Amino acid sequence: MMRETINRELDHDPRFTWRGGSVTRIENLSDIVFALALGMIVSSAARPETFKQLTENLLTIIPVTAAFGILFMIWNAHYVFFRRYGVADGRIILLNCILLLLVLFTAYPLRFIFDSLYGYIEGVMGDWSRLQAAGINFREAGVIMGYFALGYGLIYLVISQMYAHALSKAGLLGLSASEIAMTRQSIWIFRVQILIVALTGACAVWTPMYAFSGWIMGLIWPAALLVDRLIPVPEVDPETTTTN
Amino acid sequence: MMRETINRELDHDPRFTWRGGSVTRIENLSDIVFALALGMIVSSAARPETFKQLTENLLTIIPVTAAFGILFMIWNAHYVFFRRYGVADGRIILLNCILLLLVLFTAYPLRFIFDSLYGYIEGVMGDWSRLQAAGINFREAGVIMGYFALGYGLIYLVISQMYAHALSKAGLLGLSASEIAMTRQSIWIFRVQILIVALTGACAVWTPMYAFSGWIMGLIWPAALLVDRLIPVPEVDPETTTTN
Amino acid sequence: MMRETINRELDHDPRFTWRGGSVTRIENLSDIVFALALGMIVSSAARPETFKQLTENLLTIIPVTAAFGILFMIWNAHYVFFRRYGVADGRIILLNCILLLLVLFTAYPLRFIFDSLYGYIEGVMGDWSRLQAAGINFREAGVIMGYFALGYGLIYLVISQMYAHALSKAGLLGLSASEIAMTRQSIWIFRVQILIVALTGACAVWTPMYAFSGWIMGLIWPAALLVDRLIPVPEVDPETTTTN
Amino acid sequence: MMRETINRELDHDPRFTWRGGSVTRIENLSDIVFALALGMIVSSAARPETFKQLTENLLTIIPVTAAFGILFMIWNAHYVFFRRYGVADGRIILLNCILLLLVLFTAYPLRFIFDSLYGYIEGVMGDWSRLQAAGINFREAGVIMGYFALGYGLIYLVISQMYAHALSKAGLLGLSASEIAMTRQSIWIFRVQILIVALTGACAVWTPMYAFSGWIMGLIWPAALLVDRLIPVPEVDPETTTTN
Repeated sequence: MMRETINRELDHDPRFTWRGGSVTRIENLSDIVFALALGMIVSSAARPETFKQLTENLLTIIPVTAAFGILFMIWNAHYVFFRRYGVADGRIILLNCILLLLVLFTAYPLRFIFDSLYGYIEGVMGDWSRLQAAGINFREAGVIMGYFALGYGLIYLVISQMYAHALSKAGLLGLSASEIAMTRQSIWIFRVQILIVALTGACAVWTPMYAFSGWIMGLIWPAALLVDRLIPVPEVDPETTTTN
Repeated sequence: MMRETINRELDHDPRFTWRGGSVTRIENLSDIVFALALGMIVSSAARPETFKQLTENLLTIIPVTAAFGILFMIWNAHYVFFRRYGVADGRIILLNCILLLLVLFTAYPLRFIFDSLYGYIEGVMGDWSRLQAAGINFREAGVIMGYFALGYGLIYLVISQMYAHALSKAGLLGLSASEIAMTRQSIWIFRVQILIVALTGACAVWTPMYAFSGWIMGLIWPAALLVDRLIPVPEVDPETTTTN
Repeated sequence: MMRETINRELDHDPRFTWRGGSVTRIENLSDIVFALALGMIVSSAARPETFKQLTENLLTIIPVTAAFGILFMIWNAHYVFFRRYGVADGRIILLNCILLLLVLFTAYPLRFIFDSLYGYIEGVMGDWSRLQAAGINFREAGVIMGYFALGYGLIYLVISQMYAHALSKAGLLGLSASEIAMTRQSIWIFRVQILIVALTGACAVWTPMYAFSGWIMGLIWPAALLVDRLIPVPEVDPETTTTN
Repeated sequence: MMRETINRELDHDPRFTWRGGSVTRIENLSDIVFALALGMIVSSAARPETFKQLTENLLTIIPVTAAFGILFMIWNAHYVFFRRYGVADGRIILLNCILLLLVLFTAYPLRFIFDSLYGYIEGVMGDWSRLQAAGINFREAGVIMGYFALGYGLIYLVISQMYAHALSKAGLLGLSASEIAMTRQSIWIFRVQILIVALTGACAVWTPMYAFSGWIMGLIWPAALLVDRLIPVPEVDPETTTTN
C-alpha cells in the first residue's frame, strides 16, 4: 500500500491512475521478446577471439546505443500502455502479437541501419571502406532509410491502435476526463510521428535527397509540443485522485 | 479489485471465471521458452552484413509471419489453460515439460516448412532455385508436410490432455455446468484438429497428393463450428457470475 | 484465496504448507537461466537449410529428450525448494548463483553426452560413423561418463546444501515435525543420488567397465525407496494444516 | 504475511525495511537481460562436436566463473536497489536502460578479459600459445585491463547514480535515519570502487606496470571497511521496525 502511494507520487504522471496491477503473462512474454531483441541488437554473431576483434567490437558501442535507445522507447510506450489501462482482451493480444513479431523482425535491420549511419560518419572522416564492404551507395542508403521508416511506422501504428482501443473502452475502464485527454494526446503524438516518418521514408526512396531526408525526423519534437498545446488536459482537483 | 472487474468484462469470455491468479513459475518458465522459440523462428543464423543480405532478410517476413502465428496460437491455448483452471499439479508439470520440449524442438522445422512453402510460391511464379538448393521435390515436400502434421498433432495432443486433466478435476476446481461444457468444447476442438492434421499428414506422405494435401486443413474451421453447435453451453444467469 | 485451497489439494504434497508466495526475482532470474539452458540443449548451432539437414535434425529428438528430462528434474527440485521454504537470504543467493553457473555450463556437455549415448546405440545397430567422427572410443566414453557424474553430482550437492540450509532455519520458518521429516527425506535422497553417481563416475574413469558403469545409476530408484522407508513422516491431523 | 516476517528476519539486513513489492516489469526486463548476459558469458559460439572440443570446453570453467561472479555482483546491487527503495520513476528507467546496455555490451569483453587472464596463468606455467593466438602482449594486456576498468567503472557509476537518486527522494520514501546512513554507505562504497578501478585502469594503460596494476583492485576491500567505519549507522530500536 505504501508503495502505491510512492508510485503515484514518483513513478508517473500524477494525473493518471494506473490500472495495471502485477505483471501479467502478456507483459511477461513481451518483456522477454523485447529483451531478446535488445540482445540481438547488442551481440555480434561471434565472441571476440583476438585483441583486434575486441577493440573493433568496442567501437560498435556508437551504433548499438542508437538502436538500443529506439527499441527502449518502444518498450516504454508498451510499458506505459499496460500500466495505464491494464487491458488485455482478444484484440490487444492480437495487436501485441503483431508488435512482438515486428520488434523481433526489425532488431537486426535496426542494428544494420545504425551501422550504416556510423559507416557514413567514418566515411565523412575519410574512411569509406565499411560502407563499400556493405555495398552501400547513396541510392542504397536511401532505400535503407525507407526500410527504417516502414518498420518504425508500422510499430507505432500498432501501438497507436492499442491506445485507440483503450480509448474506445474509456467507459468500461472508468477513464476520467483528463485521462481521456491524455490518452488522446498520446495517440496524436504517435500519429504525428508516423506521418513524419512516412514522409521521411518517401523522400529517401523517391527523391534525390536519399538518406539525407533523415533530418526531416527532427520535426518530431516541435510537432509533439504542438500536439501538447492543441489537446489541453483539464486540471484535476486533488480530491478526485485520492478517492481512486 | 477494479482490474478484476475490468478483466471479467473485457479480457475473456464472461461465462468463465478465471481461477489463475498472478503468474506462477511454471507459466514464467513456459513464457520464456515460448519467447525463445519465437526468437528462433524470426532470427536467421547471422546478422545481415551487406545491403543485399538485408533486402533478402526482409523478404523472409512472409514465412516468418506464418510460423509466428501458429506458435502464438499454441501460446494462447497454453495461456487460456492456466488462466482458466490455475492447476499445476505433478501431471500438469509433466505435460507442460513435454509441451515445452516439443515447442523448442519444432521451432526450426516450423520455420523450415514455411520457408519451403514460400519457395513453392516463388517456384509457381517462375523461380525454383530456392527449393532446388534445399533439395526439395514433390516427394520431399510431402514428407515435410508429414513432419509438420506430426509436430502439430503432438503439441495439440499434449494440450488436449492438459484440458482433459482439468476436466477430471472439475469438482475440486468448482467448475460450473457451463464451464464444464466450455472445457468439453475446447477439448473436442483440439481433438478434431488433431484428427484433421493426422489425415493431412497421412495423405501427404502416402498418397500422390503430397504437400497439396495441406488444403485438407481448411476443414478445421467448419469442424470447429460444428463442435460449437454440437456441445451447447448452458445459459448463465448473471447473479452466479457476480457471486464468484 | 480460492486458488490457495486448490493448490493445497492439488498441486503438491498436502503434508507440506508452501511458504513461497508470488515469484521472486531470484526465482525469475533462475527460470530464465533454466530456459536458456533448455534452449541450448535443444537448438543446434544453425537452422536446417536443406531437406537432408531437416531429417537429421529431427532424429536428434532422442538424445535431446533425455538431456531435457534431466535438466527439467533439476528445475523441479529448485522449484519445490522455493515454493516450500521461500527462503532467499545471502547464503541461498550464493548457492543459487553457483547452481545457475553449473546449469548453464553443463548444458552443452549434457547434450554431448546423450549424443554420444545415441551414437553408441547407432553403433550397436551397425553404424559407428557418428562416434568415430566425434573421436570417441571406450576410453573416451568412460571419461565422458565421468564428466557427467561430476556435473550431476555438483549440481545435486548445491541443491542438497540449499535444502540443508532451509532445515537449519526450521525454527524461524516454523516447519512442523512432518515438514522437517520430509525435508530430511529430500536431503537424503539427494545425498544417495550424489553417492551413486560418484561411484558410477569413478568406475567409468578408473575401471575397464568404462561407460557401461552407467547402469549403476539404476540403483538410484531402489535407494530412494529405501530412504522413504527409513525416514518416516509423522501423520498430520487435518486441523493443523487448515490453521496455517 | 508470514513470508514478510521471515524475509525481515532472514533475507536481508534487518535494519532496512524493503519497499519493493512484487517483481515489476522494469525488474523483469532487467532480469532477462542479466540472464542473457550470463548466458553470453558461459556459452561459447558453438556446441562441442568432438571429445577434444568437449574437454577444452570444460577447462573454460575457470575464466567463466570469474566473469560470472562479477556479473552476478552487479545483479545483486541492482536487486538490492529495487527491493530496498522500490522506485521506478523516469530517471531510474533511464539509468536502468543505460545499465542494461552496458551489461549486455560488456558481456563478451568481460569473458575475453578473463580468458586472457587464464591465458596468462597458462603462460606462466609454460604455454603461451593461447595469448599469442589472441595477439596479446604486455602492452595489449594493459589496454584490456583499461577496457575492463572503463566498463566496470561506468556500470558502478550508473548504479551509484541510482542509489543517489533514491537518497534524494528520502523524504518521499520515508527513509529512517539509519536507512539514510546505509544508503550513504552503499553510495560511498560504489564511489570508492570506481576510484580504485579508474586508478587501476590508468596505471594499466599509461604506466609500464601494464596489466599487473590489477592488484591495485585488492584495495577495494580495505577501503569498503573504512567506509563502513566512517559512516556509522545509528542504532534502531526494535519498535520502529515492527511498526512498519
